[in-house]
Formats: sequence, structure tokens, C-alpha cells
Amino acid sequence: MEEIIGGVCAPKGFLAGGVRGGIKASSQKKDLALIYSRKICTAAAMFTTNKVRAASVLVSQEHLADGKLQAIIANSGNANACTGEAGMDAARRMAELVSDEFSIACSQVAVASTGVIGVPLPIAVIENNIGALKESLRDDGQGHAAALEAIMTTDTREKEIALEIEIDGKPVRIGAMGKGSGMIHPNMATMLVFITTDAAIEKDALDTALRGAVKRSFHRLTIDGDTSTNDMVVIMANGEAENTPIAEGRGGYEKFSAALEHACVVLAKKMARDGEGAKKLVTVTVNGAGSAETAEILAKSVASSSLVKAACFGADANWGRVLCAMGYSETDFTPQKVSVSFSSGAGEILVCENGESVPFSEEKAKLILSREEIEILINLRDGSEKASAWGCDLTYDYVKINGDYRS
Amino acid sequence: MEEIIGGVCAPKGFLAGGVRGGIKASSQKKDLALIYSRKICTAAAMFTTNKVRAASVLVSQEHLADGKLQAIIANSGNANACTGEAGMDAARRMAELVSDEFSIACSQVAVASTGVIGVPLPIAVIENNIGALKESLRDDGQGHAAALEAIMTTDTREKEIALEIEIDGKPVRIGAMGKGSGMIHPNMATMLVFITTDAAIEKDALDTALRGAVKRSFHRLTIDGDTSTNDMVVIMANGEAENTPIAEGRGGYEKFSAALEHACVVLAKKMARDGEGAKKLVTVTVNGAGSAETAEILAKSVASSSLVKAACFGADANWGRVLCAMGYSETDFTPQKVSVSFSSGAGEILVCENGESVPFSEEKAKLILSREEIEILINLRDGSEKASAWGCDLTYDYVKINGDYRS
Repeated sequence: MEEIIGGVCAPKGFLAGGVRGGIKASSQKKDLALIYSRKICTAAAMFTTNKVRAASVLVSQEHLADGKLQAIIANSGNANACTGEAGMDAARRMAELVSDEFSIACSQVAVASTGVIGVPLPIAVIENNIGALKESLRDDGQGHAAALEAIMTTDTREKEIALEIEIDGKPVRIGAMGKGSGMIHPNMATMLVFITTDAAIEKDALDTALRGAVKRSFHRLTIDGDTSTNDMVVIMANGEAENTPIAEGRGGYEKFSAALEHACVVLAKKMARDGEGAKKLVTVTVNGAGSAETAEILAKSVASSSLVKAACFGADANWGRVLCAMGYSETDFTPQKVSVSFSSGAGEILVCENGESVPFSEEKAKLILSREEIEILINLRDGSEKASAWGCDLTYDYVKINGDYRS
Repeated sequence: MEEIIGGVCAPKGFLAGGVRGGIKASSQKKDLALIYSRKICTAAAMFTTNKVRAASVLVSQEHLADGKLQAIIANSGNANACTGEAGMDAARRMAELVSDEFSIACSQVAVASTGVIGVPLPIAVIENNIGALKESLRDDGQGHAAALEAIMTTDTREKEIALEIEIDGKPVRIGAMGKGSGMIHPNMATMLVFITTDAAIEKDALDTALRGAVKRSFHRLTIDGDTSTNDMVVIMANGEAENTPIAEGRGGYEKFSAALEHACVVLAKKMARDGEGAKKLVTVTVNGAGSAETAEILAKSVASSSLVKAACFGADANWGRVLCAMGYSETDFTPQKVSVSFSSGAGEILVCENGESVPFSEEKAKLILSREEIEILINLRDGSEKASAWGCDLTYDYVKINGDYRS
């Protein structure tokens, strides 16, 4: 597996672009993005489980029903959620505009929106800019970069990756971009992820591979416990690598799935690192669990705890909060067997063994926790399963950013 | 129902006191509290559901098994949690010290601790101060105040109430004190509540009344989503009011239950108002629900949302976050029927109807949300049930307090 450049344009046959339409009135950034494949693609997607769903989510769910896509249009600056029938009309119109420009079926266009909830989407802005958006398409890293800029909201860092693997002796590429820095929780809140691949792969295999990858990446990501109205992960596979089509259990399925999962984990960690106001990436790893599910539930509970997150911000080795967050999760373990260590580039330190305090150097713990990437290592001594979850620290800036997001 | 003074010493036959032993090394505040009844009491209690439980919780659960108590000893500055066998010995020793001083059975003493987790409890401090603690007992408001000071940790306000009702033509009193300002969530995190009453009441009736009151007060309280290792609510009834014993369904049971619930709701709101770093009390009320359970789940979900809490801090009428937090809760409702208003002493403003935005004055909304007590009113238009939950805003100070709690 080799890391390459070019993002969603790295796989053969994909173009991307982005323009500034003016939906984000207060910013000079691009706010309209388009990803387009020269050939029709096999596609799979996962959507938010929030009961309040944006119009873009509802429309894309309809369009994905047949597992075929050729384009994704996305806007930032407006979530088009809680906008009623007018919102549904606007989301359908977004698909229609792409359909008209490229003479493809409406149902081959996915629609994504991100931004403030409850404000009518100014569809005229998109109508006026659809030509320019088409013009902006390029098949290289610049096209990818323009589209990526256009889907970012409070993000401060770009989240992107491209990989190349070999299947059937042929180079197969996967490219991905993501946005998301707040409201991210196991279930993909305010997160948009668009993945392209030139692999030839059967629809069911693509779907299964995506579900597995999302389960072990974005669903283990937590920023603030809120899940959103707009989230989606979409993958399009156009087959231009000309490998023998991948199916479950054959044709390099494992290799493809592993690469896809790797791409998703890289994006998930980049999102955690860029959590609103975050100064630190916090990885919580639970080892020695009786089941992977137990490990996952505990890792997520610790990564989600406001008190643990605030302690990470303060570089405070407050391991009692780690045990406490494990204790109120909905799973079983033996507190008296638990050990906890903190780890980072500055070293590793054991702070709790058999559920009790062990003597440790507060000075060394502070040094370890002062790094930008820290890990909380938990061992349950109850089996051999493990899982990681990713989160960030809770900072003054989180409060600042979210105290007045709309203005 | 009349509000009176005296706290836990308002009911006949109860004494309270507090001293500074020095468990809180960095503070000049009292840290040892005692509440004592001249007569043996019928008692009931509720404890944390966290799987990691403090030694004090385990010992008190044992001692409450027979429904009899005569005293409660409590310390702040140390949670005596994650402290192993030594911690259990220390908690048992606390009960024994009271038992020896007053010649009562060990099992008639409840033990409570609050403070930092994972540090051995310096039991010698309590041994050295048990005499002074007994000496400090008084049957008036000063005794109550000393005990209350001794159980406070990061609390900035006192939480107390006393009520008088009439049963059987006799005055019956209920007094209560509480501590808790962080880690409070539906399930009583880091919350200690001690309630006294001179009512004569049967054990089962007292238990049922307490469960109902806690369900509709402390379990609807949320500060930061974390639940703790140490929480307990204990009520002692000594019968000195000499009313005909209350039983379920007779002898003024409804009246007593209503007064107890009122006392608990008052304390719960005081805790929410004093959430760590909180500037505002946020009440979330869901009306028009098909069931009380649905109303409760939705109210708690909104009150718990970090993004809603941050918006309250910023006085930002970001109602989309309210709908979003409803949407990811584990209950059913129709988003298209929901209305949302914000209310405070400065007025009321409708911001969402039928799940969509309605035009409203941002200026007026800002004024309303700038008050210290604000209410988020939600109507589901789906029935006639309702429930409230209480929380607070998320502030810079929350992060500051919790970034470095131990030092």
C-alpha cells in the first residue's frame, strides 16, 4: 500500500472542482464542490442516523438506491436541514443542475450540504454558478484541492488521502477527501467524506467494504457527543483500473478493504486532530478485552468524556476520570483488573494497575500529556481483543467557536 | 407547603456539624460532616449506577440493607474510589468511629465521600477529628451550615432547602442539603444529597417516595454527561413529628411525596445553576408528548448537548442544534411537527414551527438568552405529556476548572 498525491483525482477517470458562489456570505472561501467520473460508477454510501435529516441526505438516499452514481455536488455554508418542502426542492434542484450540465440521470447525482441548520438554501446562487463549477473541473490535485476547500466549514486543516495498491498486477487507486471538525461522534456527525476509486468492484462487495471501514474509523471518532443532520460517506468506483471485478472473498477483496479502511482511519484521525478548538489528538486504545465490542464501547466512552477531554487539555494525569468513564458505559468489565497508561512521543507511564493508583512521576506524566498526540492505553486483562477510538481535548476555543457559530 | 429555615436540622430531633480535619490540604474549608438523629430512623437511599463504585458507596449499600440509620458521616477532598481493600477498610472505619462515639451499631451509619479519585483516604485525619466532629453537632441552622460547608468541593453556592407540611394536623418537616457541581448527569454523578424528615413513615413508602422524587429531579439533571463513582441520596425519617405513620396510598402519602419531590427539584435546579463554570441555568421543557418517557428522553438529550450548552453561553438562538439533539436521542417523534421557543424573564420568542425556521428578531432572542435563567420550550404536538430537564451552559470556566482539577 503506497501513499500517493492527488486526492479524489488520483484514481483514473475522476475530475473535481470548486468555486465560490457566495453562500458563505462572510467568507471569501469556495463553497460549491463537484466530483465527477467520466464513466458511471458503482456506488455505496452511509448516512446519518439522526431522526432529523437534511434534505440533501434524503435526496441522496433516494439516488443511491440503485447503487449507481456519476457525480457528487456539495455546498458548504448552509446545511439545508429543517428547511421543509422548499429545502427538498432545493436539494432536488442541485441534482438536476448537474444532470442538465452533463446529460446524466438525476439519480446518478448525490447531493451533500453542510453548514448552519434552518436557513433556506439560496438555490439561485447554485443555479448561477453551475456553469463555472463545471468549468472548474480538473483531473489533478488542483481540482481535488478546489473541491476540498469548498466543503470545509470550521475545519482548520485539510483532510485528504490517496493510496495505490496492486490487484491483478494492475495499479488500483483510492482517493478521499473529508470535512468535519465539530459535532463528530460515532455516527458521522456533520461529516462529509467523498471517496473515489478506479477499482472494478461489485456493488455488494463495495457496500460491505465501506460498512466495515466506516465501523472501524468514523464510528470510533468522537468530538463532542453530538451527531448531526447531514452526514454522509459516499464511495464511487468507476472500474477504470481494469482489474477483474472484485467480489466478496475474491479478486483482492481483502487487499481493497484494508486499503479503504486505512484511508478512512487516516481521515478519522485527521478529523479528531482538527476537532473544534482541539489542541491534541487523543487516541484511546483498549487492549485485553473479552470481545471487540466491549473494547470499542469502552474506548468510545473514555474518548467522549468531557472530563477526560478537559484533563487532556490540562495535561493532568487524572486517570480516575478514565475509570469513571469506563464505569458508566453500557458494558461489563472488572474494575479491579484494569490498568491505565498514558503514552506519547515523550514516553509512556503506568498510572493505574488492578484498578488502583500506582506511584508515578507527576512531572513525567505532565511531559507525556503535553504532546500534541497522546494515547490513553487501557488493559482489561480479560481476553485478547482490542479497539481504538479517536477524540480530542476540550479547550477554551471549543466553547468560543460554538458559543457563536451562526454569526 | 411552606419554606422554612434550618436545612437538615429543621426537622425535630436532628443534629448536624462539621469540622476541618485537613483532608483538603490546600483549603481552609471544613471537610468532615456528620448528621445525627436522636432516634433511630427509617431510611432509604439511591446510589450511583457506575460500575466503578467508591468504597463509601459499597459500605453504605451494605448498611442500608435493613432500612435503618441513625447517622451519616461524610468527607470531602477525597473520593475514596479506586483505592482497593485499603479504601474499603477506611470506609468501614469511618462508620466504626461514629458507632463508637454514639454507641450505635455500625450498620446504622451511612458513609459518603467526595473529591479526587484514586488517592488513599487519610483515615488518621478522621480518627483524630471524630471527637471534634461530635462536639460540633448542633440542632439548628448553624449545625446544618457547618455540615454543608464540609461536603462542598467545587461548589460555589450552597444547596439547601427545608419545608413544612401538615399531616394529621401535625407539622411535618423535611430538610435537605446537597453538593454537586460537575459530573452531574441523569444518574446522580458526584452528587451527595442528605435529607432528613421527622415524619413517621413506613420503610416501603419512604423508598417509593424517594425513588419517584429522584426520578423527576436529580435524574433529569445534566452538567457534562459524566456520571460518577460516589453518588448517593440518603433520606432518614425519625418519626418525631408523631403523625400516624404514612404508608403508600394513605396517611398523607401524596402530600409527603409531593413535598419531597419539591425539595429534590429545588436542589437539582440549584446544582444545575452551579454547574462547573456555569453562568446560566438552562431548563428544557418538552410539552405535547405522547408519553412522559419520550418527553423526558428528549428534554435530557437537549439539556446534555455540548453544542446547545455552548449556544446558551453565547446567547445564540441556534435552534437547529435543539432539533439535532432531539434527533439523535433514542426515541421517536415527528420532526415536522416540532416547535421551539426560547423564554426567560426578558420574554418568550418562537424560533421554529413545524420543524422549520420562522422569522424572528435576532435582537430579541439575544436579549432573552442573555438572562441567567433561560428555558428552551419544545412542543411535539403529539399528545399531552410533558417533562423538564435541567442543565447549564458550557463556558470557558468549565474547561479551566476541569483542565487541572487535581492541583
